[in-house]
Amino acid sequence: MAQRLDSRSPLKGNHHCDVAIVGAGLAGLCAARDLDTAGLQVLVLEAQERVGGRTLTEHIDSSTFIDHGGQWVSPGQERIVALAEELGVALFPNWDAGLTVDWSGGVRSTYQGMFPPGSGHAEAQVRDGARKLTQLAAELPLGRPWEAPSATEWDSRTYHHWLAENIPSPLAQQGLARALEGVFGGGPGELSLLAALAIIRSGAHEISRLVSAENPGPEHRFIGGAQQLCERMAQSLDERIITGAYVAEIEHGNNSVQLYSGDLTVSARRAIVTLPPVLAGRIRYSPALPAARDHLTQRVPMGWVIKVHCVYPERFWVAEQLSGKVTSDGGPVRVVADNSPPNGSPGILVGFIEGAEARRLAAAGREQRCAETVAQLRHYFGTLAGRPDAYFEHAWGDDEFARGAYGGYWTPGVWTSYGHTLAAPIGTLHWAGTETSEAWNGKLEGAVHSGRRAAAEVLAAFR
Amino acid sequence: MAQRLDSRSPLKGNHHCDVAIVGAGLAGLCAARDLDTAGLQVLVLEAQERVGGRTLTEHIDSSTFIDHGGQWVSPGQERIVALAEELGVALFPNWDAGLTVDWSGGVRSTYQGMFPPGSGHAEAQVRDGARKLTQLAAELPLGRPWEAPSATEWDSRTYHHWLAENIPSPLAQQGLARALEGVFGGGPGELSLLAALAIIRSGAHEISRLVSAENPGPEHRFIGGAQQLCERMAQSLDERIITGAYVAEIEHGNNSVQLYSGDLTVSARRAIVTLPPVLAGRIRYSPALPAARDHLTQRVPMGWVIKVHCVYPERFWVAEQLSGKVTSDGGPVRVVADNSPPNGSPGILVGFIEGAEARRLAAAGREQRCAETVAQLRHYFGTLAGRPDAYFEHAWGDDEFARGAYGGYWTPGVWTSYGHTLAAPIGTLHWAGTETSEAWNGKLEGAVHSGRRAAAEVLAAFR
Repeated sequence: MAQRLDSRSPLKGNHHCDVAIVGAGLAGLCAARDLDTAGLQVLVLEAQERVGGRTLTEHIDSSTFIDHGGQWVSPGQERIVALAEELGVALFPNWDAGLTVDWSGGVRSTYQGMFPPGSGHAEAQVRDGARKLTQLAAELPLGRPWEAPSATEWDSRTYHHWLAENIPSPLAQQGLARALEGVFGGGPGELSLLAALAIIRSGAHEISRLVSAENPGPEHRFIGGAQQLCERMAQSLDERIITGAYVAEIEHGNNSVQLYSGDLTVSARRAIVTLPPVLAGRIRYSPALPAARDHLTQRVPMGWVIKVHCVYPERFWVAEQLSGKVTSDGGPVRVVADNSPPNGSPGILVGFIEGAEARRLAAAGREQRCAETVAQLRHYFGTLAGRPDAYFEHAWGDDEFARGAYGGYWTPGVWTSYGHTLAAPIGTLHWAGTETSEAWNGKLEGAVHSGRRAAAEVLAAFR
Repeated sequence: MAQRLDSRSPLKGNHHCDVAIVGAGLAGLCAARDLDTAGLQVLVLEAQERVGGRTLTEHIDSSTFIDHGGQWVSPGQERIVALAEELGVALFPNWDAGLTVDWSGGVRSTYQGMFPPGSGHAEAQVRDGARKLTQLAAELPLGRPWEAPSATEWDSRTYHHWLAENIPSPLAQQGLARALEGVFGGGPGELSLLAALAIIRSGAHEISRLVSAENPGPEHRFIGGAQQLCERMAQSLDERIITGAYVAEIEHGNNSVQLYSGDLTVSARRAIVTLPPVLAGRIRYSPALPAARDHLTQRVPMGWVIKVHCVYPERFWVAEQLSGKVTSDGGPVRVVADNSPPNGSPGILVGFIEGAEARRLAAAGREQRCAETVAQLRHYFGTLAGRPDAYFEHAWGDDEFARGAYGGYWTPGVWTSYGHTLAAPIGTLHWAGTETSEAWNGKLEGAVHSGRRAAAEVLAAFR
C-alpha cells in the first residue's frame, strides 16, 4: 500500500533514493516502473491522495464505471496497449455503431458518416485538408517542430487562419478544427498552425482517420476504467509512492536534487517532474531555472473541460439506430458519445462542456450544469434522455492538481520561442508528462511515451 | 531598519497583523503606507533581500545612478509625482533634446521629429491612427474592458491586424505598434486589439502624445533613481517589512488569512497579493482559487527585456546635436536613449534588448551581450560609443522575482474570458500590482494606483 498521508500533516524527515519523481500519473508511474525494473531506487511524490493524474475512474458498481479523465485508445497507440496488456487491463471497442445526431441552428437530424446530408463537398474537403496538413506536418522533425524550414512562418499564424484560406466549406473547416482542437479543450487563444502540425506529426490523432484509405479500426476503452493502469503500477511500486506530498521546492545541483514537501525532504541523484508545464512552473527551483524554461511555463496554459455523464436504465438510443454521438453548433454540450460499460448496461452518455461554455458554467454550480446538460441531451435524444438515473461530472479547471484539461496548448510564437526547453533536461532535472511527448502529444499514449523517455534519459546519465 | 533575513534561514514563528501584504514593490508599499496611516497593523512579506520590485537602482557614485527597472514618469501621472513629492524625491526632465539617429537597412541618418525625412505621410497617419484608437478606447468602461459593446470582436483579433487594416504606411504601423508594445517588452504572442485599447483607456501612454494638439511636456526621471520611492517608504514602515520571505502558501477563510514562508507564519484579517499575475499564480492557495482566477494567472505571461547601460566620460553625442535617441530596424538594441544623470556627467546611454533578441542573447552570456550592445551603439553613434568606461545590465527574465519585464501582457481572448478576475477580491484576498490597475496599466503610476485601490478595498471591508 502506498504511504497515505494527510496533506496537512505530511510524512516528515529525510528520505534518500536514486530518482525522485514528481507526480503519480501515467508519465510518472511509467518512469518509476522502468527505473525500478533497472534496479534503481525511486520515490514518487504525489500531491493528491490518489494516483492517476488526469485519469480518474469512479465506480458505480462492480461492472459500471465512469471515466472522468482520459479514457480512449486510438489505433496506433502501441505503448499504452502494451502497458495495459502487461498490467492485465483488458480493452473493449468503443460503442459507436449507428447514426449521429446533428443539431444545427436548433434543428435536429440524424445521419451516417462524417456529415449530415446536404453538406455538399464538406467530406471531400475534410479529407483533402487532412492530406495537405499531413504533408506539411511531415516537414517537422519529430519532437522538434521549431526546426522545420517554415517554422517561423507557421508559428506566426493560426490554424484557423490556415483553414479559412485553404478549406472553402465552413462545415469542413469546423470538422478539421474539431479534429485537432478536441485535444485541448478550448482557448482562449488560438492554436498556431505550427502547433497544429506538431500535434499531427506526433501521432496524427483524429486526422489519421481522415487520410487513411481503409478504416484504421475502432477506438478502444479500458474495461474497468483508465485509472486502473496507474493503480496497478502503484500496487507493484508499493511504498515507493508517497501521496499527499505537494512538492513546493526543488534544489538542484550537479550531482543531487532535494525535493521539499512540508516537513518531508527527499534527496536523490536526479528528479523527473511530470506535471503539465504550467504546474511544473509553480514549483520553486533553487537555483532558479533559466528564463527560457520559465517563460515556457508561463505560456502553455491548460484548456478547460467539464466532463459530464448521464446514466440511464438502458441504452435507449440504440432502438432508434443512434450511436450516441452528436455534432452540434449550440448549447453547452456539443460533443456527446456513448460511454456505456462493455456489457452495455446501464446506458451512459458522456458530454463535454468546453471553452467558453465551461467558463460560464463553472461559476454556475453543479445543479445548473446538470440541468443544462440534461435539457440539451433531451434535444438530441428525446424525452428519455431527460430522465437520467444519475449525473456525474468532473470540472478539471477547478481541480487544483490538474488546473484544466485535456492538456496545455500552444498559442502563436510559443513553439518557436520556447519549444526547445520543453523536454530538454536541465542538469539533474528531467521533464515528462504528455505535453512533453514527441509521440501522441496530449494523449494517454503521450504520457506513457514521455515517462519512458525520461526514465531512459536518467538511465543513460547513470551509465 | 527592515528585518533582513537570509532566505535559507527565514524568521521563524507566528506573527499577527491586520493586513499582510505580499511584495514590497511600489504597489505593496503604497498599500502598506495607506493602511498604516489609517491605524492598521500591516506586515509586508518580500521574497528578496531588497525592496523595490521592478524598480532597481544601482549607484555608481554619489551623483551617478543606473535605473535597471522602471524609471520614467509621463505627463498626467499625478499619483507618482505626488508620492515623490511627499517622500522628498525630486524629478528632473528627461534628456531628449536633439536629433534622433535612424538605422534602416544598415543605413544611418539623423532627423528631427517623429520620422526620418522621406517617410511620406507616416506622421499624419500615426496621428490619425492614434485619434481613431483613442476614440475606440473611449467605449471601454474604465477597468472593465470586457464590458465594452464590441469587446468580444476586439478581443478576437490582434492589434497588428487592426493596424494592417487601418494604417496604410508600414512606418506608421510600426510607430503605433511601438507606442503600445513598448509597455510589454515583446511576445511571443500578439496583443489583442481589446488589450491595446485597454492600455490606451488606462492612461493613453505614448498614444496621448500623438493626439494632443500641444506638446504635453517632457518625460521626467527621479534624481537618485526610481527605487528610492520604495526605499523611503520602507524606512518609514521600518520593521513592518520582512525581507527574504518567499510566500509559498496562503490559507484563506472568511475572517482570516495565514501566509506561510518557511518557518514563518503570518496571520492576518486580510491579505493583499501584489505580484504580477503569473507569480501570484505560483503561490499555493488553500482552498484553491476558482478556476477562472487560476486560468488568468496561466495566461498573462511576462515580456522579456534586458536593459543595458553604457557609461562614457561625457555625453559626446551632444556635440553632434544628437539626443541619444535611436529608431532602428535591426540588431539586438533597437531602442536607445540618453540616461545620463541630472548634472549631465558622465554620459550614459540606455538600450533595450527585447523579445526574440532578448531570448537569443539571454543564453549567450553577459560578455556577448556587452560586445553586441557596444558594437551596435558604435553603428548609431560612432567610434566614441565603442569605448564605454563601463557596461551594466539587468536581465529581467532571469530575475526569479520578476520573471520578465516590463509587465504581463494580454493575448487574444484573455481579457474577455478572464479579465473580470484580475482585480476582484476573493473573500479576504485582494489583488494589486500594475497589471491590475485601471490607470496607467503596466507603468509605475499603475502600481501606485493599484496599491492604493487595494488598501481602500480593505479599509472599506473593515468599516
